[in-house]
Amino acid sequence: MSFEIERKFLVRGDDWRKLTQRHIKIRQAYLASNSKNSIRVRIKDDKTATLTVKSKPSSLRRLELEYPVPLLEAEAMMQLRQGAVIEKIRHVVPWDDLEWEVDVFLGSNAGLIIAEIELDSEHQQFRMPAWIGREITGQLQYYNSALVTQPYCSWAREDAELQQLA
Amino acid sequence: MSFEIERKFLVRGDDWRKLTQRHIKIRQAYLASNSKNSIRVRIKDDKTATLTVKSKPSSLRRLELEYPVPLLEAEAMMQLRQGAVIEKIRHVVPWDDLEWEVDVFLGSNAGLIIAEIELDSEHQQFRMPAWIGREITGQLQYYNSALVTQPYCSWAREDAELQQLA
Repeated sequence: MSFEIERKFLVRGDDWRKLTQRHIKIRQAYLASNSKNSIRVRIKDDKTATLTVKSKPSSLRRLELEYPVPLLEAEAMMQLRQGAVIEKIRHVVPWDDLEWEVDVFLGSNAGLIIAEIELDSEHQQFRMPAWIGREITGQLQYYNSALVTQPYCSWAREDAELQQLA
Repeated sequence: MSFEIERKFLVRGDDWRKLTQRHIKIRQAYLASNSKNSIRVRIKDDKTATLTVKSKPSSLRRLELEYPVPLLEAEAMMQLRQGAVIEKIRHVVPWDDLEWEVDVFLGSNAGLIIAEIELDSEHQQFRMPAWIGREITGQLQYYNSALVTQPYCSWAREDAELQQLA
């Protein structure tokens, strides 16, 4: 049984890019996302796939159960999704004894870049990189399960409109 | 990849009981059930567990993808369910080259008995037992994913009230 303790941040600038060790292409979709759980199908580099059940992100700590599934079955499950498919490039950035995952979103979420760090406990301290911006842990609109129905491009348009009014 | 082609019927009388080869205790719950899919956690005989993704029962033929999961993880997923837990005893009844599964529901669905037969094709012919009643294939209220929010006991009360009025 595994619990996920994860903090999420926006990203400032491009300095993280030169620290990137490797990157993975991710396509994922949600079979469901409700008040109790979210159920995700993820395909990495068009090669391997997982089915993941997570409890709702009500706190830093979430139940996360992940199972490998055959690629063809993952593709079939994608057809049963709710909302859009999320596409992103995940950059893995080693940092002290930890690892940042910097997700550069594509498609209708292009422009959004989110850095995540997985911790062993809620109170774990770590050195913060200069390229880390505002913390967005718990802000549901930034979660992938919300982006499938409210993509970042729809926010950007609202921002642009507000700026024109200002 | 597997497709399920299944027909469901109500059951008349008890004659099927003497034909039963074995029975299994099933506890199951739904993580989600929406317009596209249902996601089920099932525990058999308190020993083995599966996570199953099915497409909606819009026709006889449904996509069904099933993965074994550790018992403890299945119990944890049960806590993330929508609606109630379904409990039933499944009796396996061999019939010619086929197998009937007769589900005797317990708890808030007590009184409901459903016989299911899995077929190789939509048009497969088979000899019908005398103890098979009305066909309910495609009648969503009889599906387990509906019984978790509209249990059989709530129907029975409505029936009883209608009978009192009649």
